[in-house]
Amino acid sequence: MAAMAAGVDVGGTKIEVVLIDATGTIVARTRRATPHLITEPAGAATASVIAEALFELLGDDSSLPVGLGLPGMMTHAGVLAYAPNLPSGNGADFVHLMETHRPGQRFVCANDADCAAVAEHAAGSARGFNDFLMVTLGTGIGGGLFSGGKLVRGSNGFAGEIGHVVVDPRGPRCPCGNRGCWERFASGAGVARLAREAAIAGRLPHLVEQVGDPELIRGEDVTRAAQEGLPEALAVVDEVGWWLALGVANMAAILDIGRVVIGGGLTQAASLLIPAARKHLDGMVEGGEVRPPIEIVAAHFGEQAGAIGAGFLAAQTYP
Amino acid sequence: MAAMAAGVDVGGTKIEVVLIDATGTIVARTRRATPHLITEPAGAATASVIAEALFELLGDDSSLPVGLGLPGMMTHAGVLAYAPNLPSGNGADFVHLMETHRPGQRFVCANDADCAAVAEHAAGSARGFNDFLMVTLGTGIGGGLFSGGKLVRGSNGFAGEIGHVVVDPRGPRCPCGNRGCWERFASGAGVARLAREAAIAGRLPHLVEQVGDPELIRGEDVTRAAQEGLPEALAVVDEVGWWLALGVANMAAILDIGRVVIGGGLTQAASLLIPAARKHLDGMVEGGEVRPPIEIVAAHFGEQAGAIGAGFLAAQTYP
Repeated sequence: MAAMAAGVDVGGTKIEVVLIDATGTIVARTRRATPHLITEPAGAATASVIAEALFELLGDDSSLPVGLGLPGMMTHAGVLAYAPNLPSGNGADFVHLMETHRPGQRFVCANDADCAAVAEHAAGSARGFNDFLMVTLGTGIGGGLFSGGKLVRGSNGFAGEIGHVVVDPRGPRCPCGNRGCWERFASGAGVARLAREAAIAGRLPHLVEQVGDPELIRGEDVTRAAQEGLPEALAVVDEVGWWLALGVANMAAILDIGRVVIGGGLTQAASLLIPAARKHLDGMVEGGEVRPPIEIVAAHFGEQAGAIGAGFLAAQTYP
Repeated sequence: MAAMAAGVDVGGTKIEVVLIDATGTIVARTRRATPHLITEPAGAATASVIAEALFELLGDDSSLPVGLGLPGMMTHAGVLAYAPNLPSGNGADFVHLMETHRPGQRFVCANDADCAAVAEHAAGSARGFNDFLMVTLGTGIGGGLFSGGKLVRGSNGFAGEIGHVVVDPRGPRCPCGNRGCWERFASGAGVARLAREAAIAGRLPHLVEQVGDPELIRGEDVTRAAQEGLPEALAVVDEVGWWLALGVANMAAILDIGRVVIGGGLTQAASLLIPAARKHLDGMVEGGEVRPPIEIVAAHFGEQAGAIGAGFLAAQTYP
């Protein structure tokens, strides 16, 4: 099928650029390292790299709409207002920057997790669900919400910062300034922290014996050992799954979502965490006896959901 | 102005029935005690009492639409699926029940906090706000959410159960089965519990001297003393305000609400809690430096927001 749109996913380390057809299938792709050069205007170095990647895939053809998924809080006006993982882009108006590189091409920007939600709703694991939650698990947790068939944007465009829901006010400090944010427990950082805590508390004796020092236990060690079936590692995964379920139950209480789609970069860990979270979720949801169970499923588009969703968003914005 | 609709607020102890005009002003009202008779079909005794109250205000006139606000989780089909404070109504289809009493009259049902949100959005403190949160403080916490100018209903109709967001998994048990639900801290029950804890811990010496026994300290004792300016009571109010702010910050992270409207039966306490919550909120909201501050305001319609909102909902449903 012919390409329908281009989608760009700007991450803290890499920029993924894809062309997709109407089914969301990737028909061409390229990738660049994310520059972290502080420029005037903000985001200019990143925009140049994106333009270069688009030229590789599109040449001078400006007919396809282009969506950009950005790692941070986007205003309704399209300004990246707050981007802890892309400080050089803080305050950038990427639509404007891209238009100067590629005049005549139509651009739209959105938060990366919102893009992932758009992809899963359009052609992935949330197809047919009007009320669902997209959770992107990486170092932190990103979120995209659909309510009544529409993406929830909020009063400034900042909705979906679900990783910063406080679930334990006496919990560990979060870079955002609060304590006990959900992403301190149920993300890549959460796996790493709970693994280290378990190692120091003597609950990972076999793993510590392998690694040599409890302080050196990493999240990946636990994930790998859990995949191999090591009970002590599975117990840590179960703990992280419990926290994942707790946050999902919170979102269900507020939004009455019918489905939760888990995506993001933590794909391998997710295959362990999803069943662990499922096990704990049912008993946690208020009025659970009168609601259909909430399904937790893996993202259809996996790690590519952000770039593909940016493409869908572009096609929906410029039909 | 002429009456536009009737609104009924069914609470755990009383049923409030009002006629409102297009501005939301009450033009007639009456009140009944809520019957708690388990009947077949469910809710029949309550429906009879509502019918009697409507007859008092409307006689046989069936021209006005009637809205019912009900204390529990309502399905999209209008069934009261889960009502811990009105067990006799569990499973009731109140539209159907009311139609048998008053054939020809048009009825609509919704969750009571959703009704309050509709009232505040239509003609109260949330007028002009497309994204806002209605918090009804009573013994527990109810919620109504607007996103993009629309009431968030969710996949089953159960959205807005914000009192059951877990904010402290090691916290006190909640009747819902979880631990540390928000309403264990920031509601009437929260004031009572934190007051008692403070008394037992020796942090309310003057109040305990008055009451005689730390175990007998009630929420009202603290609220009254705080209104009189007693520092030790103000400290408890400040603690409850901190929890109120924490839950609001959570909701802001998820939904990016522009305003929070506080209503419900805890009106007197709310006048103390709102300033206390305001004080703590700003530092708690992620990306607070790039968002406009979130205003926390009192409900314009006060305790009547539920009944008035039920009337607005009826007028909106049957324009």
